[in-house]
Amino acid sequence: MPGDQTLAETAGLTEIGSLLGGQARLLRLPAQADVRGSLRPLEFSELPFIPKRLFVVDDVPAGVTRGGHAHASCRQLLLVLAGEVMIELRYKQKQANFLLSANGRAILIEPEVWSRQTYVGEGSVLLVLASEPYDDDSYVSG
Amino acid sequence: MPGDQTLAETAGLTEIGSLLGGQARLLRLPAQADVRGSLRPLEFSELPFIPKRLFVVDDVPAGVTRGGHAHASCRQLLLVLAGEVMIELRYKQKQANFLLSANGRAILIEPEVWSRQTYVGEGSVLLVLASEPYDDDSYVSG
Repeated sequence: MPGDQTLAETAGLTEIGSLLGGQARLLRLPAQADVRGSLRPLEFSELPFIPKRLFVVDDVPAGVTRGGHAHASCRQLLLVLAGEVMIELRYKQKQANFLLSANGRAILIEPEVWSRQTYVGEGSVLLVLASEPYDDDSYVSG
Repeated sequence: MPGDQTLAETAGLTEIGSLLGGQARLLRLPAQADVRGSLRPLEFSELPFIPKRLFVVDDVPAGVTRGGHAHASCRQLLLVLAGEVMIELRYKQKQANFLLSANGRAILIEPEVWSRQTYVGEGSVLLVLASEPYDDDSYVSG
């Protein structure tokens, strides 16, 4: 159910791990793969929030770090579509790192979770779905 | 305004062309680019439909063609995030081809527009936003 805190049990989208005491969750998007390639569907009704925007980050030189902030109330789903991106997360006294690659793993982060992303190689592409429209005032540096 | 037929005039998202008598439109997503890379935001309120799902297609061998159908009522936004994909479109007696690459160009297609995609090189990634949840009955082959 959109807006519900839990992921739909019947969905193709599956929760496969929890980080930072549940403030971040590792998800897996199933693929429909055959000799013609791989298609990964994501029904927004399967997410615990309704996306209001997305952004794509690319053309990042290898080794560059971006982000380094939290959001006061925005929830985000981070998905790597090419290459590899190291995701650093912090919430209160907890921290976690996770290397996202283009294999259908995604990280769902709750508000107030600080995140920083390091683009490991050339050609990495990060897709982020956000629960709120862009708001410059929502940024919380840490 | 979500659901309106026109794109918001004030939006960063810009219409830069029309195909098939207006049944397909070429859009440009502006980038915030600097030495750290490029970020392309897309506020869903700028689109003429509210996305209900997305899908990502990757791992497609060079030269493979996918799609080859229309949808009875679903609208779609096609965006290439890596590599190049040739988009073929048909609507009634009209046809158009457009080579999408990872430069922020996107194609918005209306219902009943037939589309087929040829992945030009290895490593191409296609992102599609759709106005309706998945429905096997919505497919119209042509």
